[in-house]
Amino acid sequence: MFYHDGKLQYSVRVDTPNPVFARMLQQAIGGQEGEIRVAMQYLFQAWNARGPKKYRDMLLETGTEELAHIEMLATAVALNLEGAPPALQEQAAKENPLVAAVLGGMDPRHYLSGGLGALPADANGVPFTGAWVVSSGNLAADMYANVMAEATGRALATRLYEFTDDPGMKDMLAFLIARDTMHQQQWLAVLEELGGHTGALPIPNSFPQAQENGEVNYAFLSTHIDGPQTEGRWTQGASLDGKGQFSQRRAEPQGGEPQLAPPVPQVHAQLE
Amino acid sequence: MFYHDGKLQYSVRVDTPNPVFARMLQQAIGGQEGEIRVAMQYLFQAWNARGPKKYRDMLLETGTEELAHIEMLATAVALNLEGAPPALQEQAAKENPLVAAVLGGMDPRHYLSGGLGALPADANGVPFTGAWVVSSGNLAADMYANVMAEATGRALATRLYEFTDDPGMKDMLAFLIARDTMHQQQWLAVLEELGGHTGALPIPNSFPQAQENGEVNYAFLSTHIDGPQTEGRWTQGASLDGKGQFSQRRAEPQGGEPQLAPPVPQVHAQLE
Amino acid sequence: MFYHDGKLQYSVRVDTPNPVFARMLQQAIGGQEGEIRVAMQYLFQAWNARGPKKYRDMLLETGTEELAHIEMLATAVALNLEGAPPALQEQAAKENPLVAAVLGGMDPRHYLSGGLGALPADANGVPFTGAWVVSSGNLAADMYANVMAEATGRALATRLYEFTDDPGMKDMLAFLIARDTMHQQQWLAVLEELGGHTGALPIPNSFPQAQENGEVNYAFLSTHIDGPQTEGRWTQGASLDGKGQFSQRRAEPQGGEPQLAPPVPQVHAQLE
Amino acid sequence: MFYHDGKLQYSVRVDTPNPVFARMLQQAIGGQEGEIRVAMQYLFQAWNARGPKKYRDMLLETGTEELAHIEMLATAVALNLEGAPPALQEQAAKENPLVAAVLGGMDPRHYLSGGLGALPADANGVPFTGAWVVSSGNLAADMYANVMAEATGRALATRLYEFTDDPGMKDMLAFLIARDTMHQQQWLAVLEELGGHTGALPIPNSFPQAQENGEVNYAFLSTHIDGPQTEGRWTQGASLDGKGQFSQRRAEPQGGEPQLAPPVPQVHAQLE
Amino acid sequence: MFYHDGKLQYSVRVDTPNPVFARMLQQAIGGQEGEIRVAMQYLFQAWNARGPKKYRDMLLETGTEELAHIEMLATAVALNLEGAPPALQEQAAKENPLVAAVLGGMDPRHYLSGGLGALPADANGVPFTGAWVVSSGNLAADMYANVMAEATGRALATRLYEFTDDPGMKDMLAFLIARDTMHQQQWLAVLEELGGHTGALPIPNSFPQAQENGEVNYAFLSTHIDGPQTEGRWTQGASLDGKGQFSQRRAEPQGGEPQLAPPVPQVHAQLE
Amino acid sequence: MFYHDGKLQYSVRVDTPNPVFARMLQQAIGGQEGEIRVAMQYLFQAWNARGPKKYRDMLLETGTEELAHIEMLATAVALNLEGAPPALQEQAAKENPLVAAVLGGMDPRHYLSGGLGALPADANGVPFTGAWVVSSGNLAADMYANVMAEATGRALATRLYEFTDDPGMKDMLAFLIARDTMHQQQWLAVLEELGGHTGALPIPNSFPQAQENGEVNYAFLSTHIDGPQTEGRWTQGASLDGKGQFSQRRAEPQGGEPQLAPPVPQVHAQLE
Ligand SMILES: [Ca+2]
Ligand SMILES: [Ca+2]
Ligand SMILES: [Ca+2]
Ligand SMILES: [Ca+2]
Ligand SMILES: [Ca+2]
Ligand SMILES: [Ca+2]
Repeated sequence: MFYHDGKLQYSVRVDTPNPVFARMLQQAIGGQEGEIRVAMQYLFQAWNARGPKKYRDMLLETGTEELAHIEMLATAVALNLEGAPPALQEQAAKENPLVAAVLGGMDPRHYLSGGLGALPADANGVPFTGAWVVSSGNLAADMYANVMAEATGRALATRLYEFTDDPGMKDMLAFLIARDTMHQQQWLAVLEELGGHTGALPIPNSFPQAQENGEVNYAFLSTHIDGPQTEGRWTQGASLDGKGQFSQRRAEPQGGEPQLAPPVPQVHAQLE
Repeated sequence: MFYHDGKLQYSVRVDTPNPVFARMLQQAIGGQEGEIRVAMQYLFQAWNARGPKKYRDMLLETGTEELAHIEMLATAVALNLEGAPPALQEQAAKENPLVAAVLGGMDPRHYLSGGLGALPADANGVPFTGAWVVSSGNLAADMYANVMAEATGRALATRLYEFTDDPGMKDMLAFLIARDTMHQQQWLAVLEELGGHTGALPIPNSFPQAQENGEVNYAFLSTHIDGPQTEGRWTQGASLDGKGQFSQRRAEPQGGEPQLAPPVPQVHAQLE
Repeated sequence: MFYHDGKLQYSVRVDTPNPVFARMLQQAIGGQEGEIRVAMQYLFQAWNARGPKKYRDMLLETGTEELAHIEMLATAVALNLEGAPPALQEQAAKENPLVAAVLGGMDPRHYLSGGLGALPADANGVPFTGAWVVSSGNLAADMYANVMAEATGRALATRLYEFTDDPGMKDMLAFLIARDTMHQQQWLAVLEELGGHTGALPIPNSFPQAQENGEVNYAFLSTHIDGPQTEGRWTQGASLDGKGQFSQRRAEPQGGEPQLAPPVPQVHAQLE
Repeated sequence: MFYHDGKLQYSVRVDTPNPVFARMLQQAIGGQEGEIRVAMQYLFQAWNARGPKKYRDMLLETGTEELAHIEMLATAVALNLEGAPPALQEQAAKENPLVAAVLGGMDPRHYLSGGLGALPADANGVPFTGAWVVSSGNLAADMYANVMAEATGRALATRLYEFTDDPGMKDMLAFLIARDTMHQQQWLAVLEELGGHTGALPIPNSFPQAQENGEVNYAFLSTHIDGPQTEGRWTQGASLDGKGQFSQRRAEPQGGEPQLAPPVPQVHAQLE
Repeated sequence: MFYHDGKLQYSVRVDTPNPVFARMLQQAIGGQEGEIRVAMQYLFQAWNARGPKKYRDMLLETGTEELAHIEMLATAVALNLEGAPPALQEQAAKENPLVAAVLGGMDPRHYLSGGLGALPADANGVPFTGAWVVSSGNLAADMYANVMAEATGRALATRLYEFTDDPGMKDMLAFLIARDTMHQQQWLAVLEELGGHTGALPIPNSFPQAQENGEVNYAFLSTHIDGPQTEGRWTQGASLDGKGQFSQRRAEPQGGEPQLAPPVPQVHAQLE
Repeated sequence: MFYHDGKLQYSVRVDTPNPVFARMLQQAIGGQEGEIRVAMQYLFQAWNARGPKKYRDMLLETGTEELAHIEMLATAVALNLEGAPPALQEQAAKENPLVAAVLGGMDPRHYLSGGLGALPADANGVPFTGAWVVSSGNLAADMYANVMAEATGRALATRLYEFTDDPGMKDMLAFLIARDTMHQQQWLAVLEELGGHTGALPIPNSFPQAQENGEVNYAFLSTHIDGPQTEGRWTQGASLDGKGQFSQRRAEPQGGEPQLAPPVPQVHAQLE
């Protein structure tokens, strides 16, 4: 169950409202790298957790924190929209290119649909989709999904930080960037507890490797028409899980050409 | 540029066609954990690569291999559909519960839209979406996205393996599961080359940590109304990147209640 | 069955074509608050109507009228696009900020996909989705869905009205705004016929209230960590349906912590 | 900011796990009528609120409560999935039609993607979309959107109640149905505070009605080829807002046939 | 402007209601091959028409007819749902496999969301999307889009015809199939009027072919690693438009390896 | 199985990077008319092919070529983004309208999500969707779908050609436009091999026309309230397939008003 206090986790201050930046911030709310995604992802992982209680608990903690991040960013969007042009100010645009830029660069739905408020959508107005949420029933897979979310999320936040020169916004983003740093650590710390590379890999580690194809499970297969050409940690030496030796070779077709049966009459293929 | 030979990377054999399993296999084609996603993801990462050529090359190799996996699975779907009931066989269903199960459990669009062929959609017929593809412009973030894709992908493949008792399908899945093992290794090997935890974290490692909020970048913040209650690797000791010390404390609001300006007349808020 | 005459329900005149306003108008065609949504919603409600014929008839009337509104707006989009820059006029943009604004602010798909014609999409180019359509099989629920559609639709239309200073467009919008006024009335009039608050609530009124939980059906539950803090019509006095007394109290967990069974082997959870 | 305690708002008990019912429950989680939608809708309305603080506060309260409803339903899904067949049990299906029904009727992604856990999707596996969320910047429009959400939500919950005969599930649904009753009341109580029909209509009430087309703002227009044929509260008498008189008449085209300019060369229309 | 009469274009009779067939019929309403798609497509093409009035008129005619087809199919869905099991009839399912099949095979949202009514969605419950609609501003391209819609639409209708043995449904489908026959003819007749292959190709025919790359505009390029292997009408002889000669050859890279600039600091690529 | 060589099919040169044109090019990558769509469409048609091997082979050839087109366009996007403003350069925008235009007109996700790289999305940032892909199991229907894709695709490419004055981009587009010319030819050549109009129509030609409604399969039905008013090749003379005579007449309702049963109690319709 959840509670609230109506206050912000960290102060949200906009010194110079900027509707274009409001649009940019939407990516951090409803985009692939955004806070709705991580909030839902951690909460669903918690609710579906069937393993040790400590991981369910931790997921619930951080999922709840992410709700406060959506709140901060929605507030930041609303504050940045307070300078939005409420009409097609042709004269103003003619005289001031910045007005033109704002007209072109803001999300029209911020005005039309939201009445100058935030939306659960990304920087292009594409609605948030639950399709991004990963809750796989495998803790290690989930942890990597979470690291990825915080890595792309922190990259996004640093780009927003570079994009603005508003001191209030920079201060808010410095807070969110720091939280992403910690959240990357958290999920990787779980992976360490799960045994690190040698213990956790391959994911899922509960499937007997004897049942996978032993010819190709540690081989880099090259599809280059001139055969293997790259080299790296992944082409030689012991595998990271300590369970095999890396090799590389040319990928070759082991199956012939597929043969499908002719169509049954009921599908009404074309008589050819 | 790309080439083909019309042969399958590995043999695809269906001993007993099963339209319900055809539907299941769609998840591995067009689902969040599926092969279209990884093919596109690795190829876009390659095409957008602005760093060392070796990583672009490797991404192109494996992206191209994934195209062959889509091909294998599409073939497997078509073969499994060869036993699909081409009509609402009420009499048959009355006499044989398995026919009833197939009628209920198959994807109707396999018959209606595909004429007993595969679709770029998931096991519920939800179309593949490019929204899943991650190509962030940050190599480490991309690598974690790739590990996640192969971890959830391998989990999916092992579940499909358990679901069927068709020897041909099990053999094909054993191949794909092995490739997922290797692909998990590959992306983690890149992360090792990038410096491992101490070199690569926090991602992006090019943002000066002095600019992030130093109060909360290694602190686990508890939103539990009774304060911190969990303990783990992430609540004490040195951080995984060696750049901080973990701590934990109660999350507290550092910002007050947000104050938005009243609505401008042009948005036509309600007179209250 | 449907008929047409090729004429517009109301005149559509654009005095000064404006491709940015064309984009704005798309919200009223294919957006959440748009005319495709209401057309489909009223028609599906009519086609699915299982109650008194008069409501089916009325829904069919107004659903058909909404088709004419899509037609008017699509025409308005096409007319506004007649001034669109058919090329990336760098020189013109350098000399005239308004050209720059238009380049930035118009929907590129109006030119690229539509050849300067309207699209079934919103102001951000997000396609219309049938997911918005409500046809619930419960007349009162449908009527509230319709009121909501006309309330947000009228808000959108008034914002478009404020945004433009084109006399032709203002005249067209004044017509559409008036129709939204009437349509709000219509659906609320049905609710009055259904008995108003005391007759229609709670929706569905056919579910015996004795079967709902009698402890919490008229209680405002506060999740604020400092307990109930708001007061309003909904915290005291008789309920609007006349079937209970409002109260308020602190929300408290009546269920304990959830306990899920451990994962079954076949899902291949991680060995932890 | 948000807090949690890890407990359920109301007890969730499943006496007889049923994977088909798990799928049904998904509609109440991630569907159009579901709890993610209302949670997001009330929270965004709160965060965007620019009017009296009491409404922001109330929206925050109930938005937070809805998070606990998602939690309850996700738990219910996970518990119902504990009886899911982890494999394509052909023999079992042959012998027991119910197994066949379950195989056909469950969501394959519950097993394949979720490892027997809940998803942020509807009963057909279609992901939750932020496109449903209404936060219009107009309090009255938002309130009608909320009434609609609770009306369709309660209809859904009563249908789920009828569908199951599991006592635990019926008890949980009786709680959720009761909360929907109260929530319908809440939003309607706000509308009463806003002045009821005469004060709040037409929405937005801040747009001067003198500017809308006075010919058609209280007229029912009939598109029936044989002219007006329906009668109801909406065709005669004073309008509900007390600002007009209802009338009805045949809808007639007031605009002629639209005339678009010929295509500009750059769009490359077909030479005809 | 549009009118209606409340009657069906052709009679819709369901002799034996079948909820599984109701789900199948949804594909013809809201699917890629469905009637909402063609209705919208023809109407938007009409509204955007900038060429000879006769084509606008014809598109408006047939777009309006398609609205009546949606109406027929929605009615058919509602009638087929009249036999839907309104509860999880475990006992019935145990005794009758057909009940099990229906439980598994029907769309749960027909009951849960629609109250046994039709939805603007496909056979998997995936909502209709405006993304399918083609209105390109090029009449010949639009005509081919329309032929494709009627070709896949007729294929779908014949498959539905095969799937059912309900005489009423077969009669209705025989009508719709016949209309698809005519509609294929219509759009191809326009292409004939536009000049047939020699006059209309390549589409758009208004782009000077001197500006396209003359080396590859009539050459079949083979990506097979063993070079050209197929032969057909498209590898030799005069081209269909009479403007070139077909040839075939091996596809070869004419561009080298792409070289992108290193990342700018502000995107925060990973330090590698 | 697929191979690559890391080189571009044709050279991609950008003389003057332009982030607005980068956004435009996205339509050709991930839009309805784009290369991902045709690549997937031809490959799925190949993999699902159940007829003569020559068509499977040809589809595989051209599907593989389209992968190289995605690669070219993704490279073109990345190169055009090299001049993107990495920050909200207010001062620059104030001084130079073109900077303002770029700020407004570029896709913010190119910077925020892609780090100045291409995305699998359209010019509005709407993600690619598998819902566009047509693989119908009927070769003639598929061929028309392919002609349509290449016709709208070539229209798009010519519009991009007109939009830019960058010589490198024009050269690349001249190549892609030429390939679209050839691809239109290819699919039409297959239709000629399938018998042309008289052999292939109506599609599917395997459904016995005796079973379709013979009253309306060659009749143009007019829904105009004043009856038939258009004339064309489709209203008189022999039909294109040589199997009927065109006629035209007024569309009239052959079915009465639909009659649905009253709602069953379990759906909880409103008591009215
Ligand atoms: Ca966060
Ligand atoms: Ca793979
Ligand atoms: Ca309207
Ligand atoms: Ca609720
Ligand atoms: Ca039709
Ligand atoms: Ca191409």
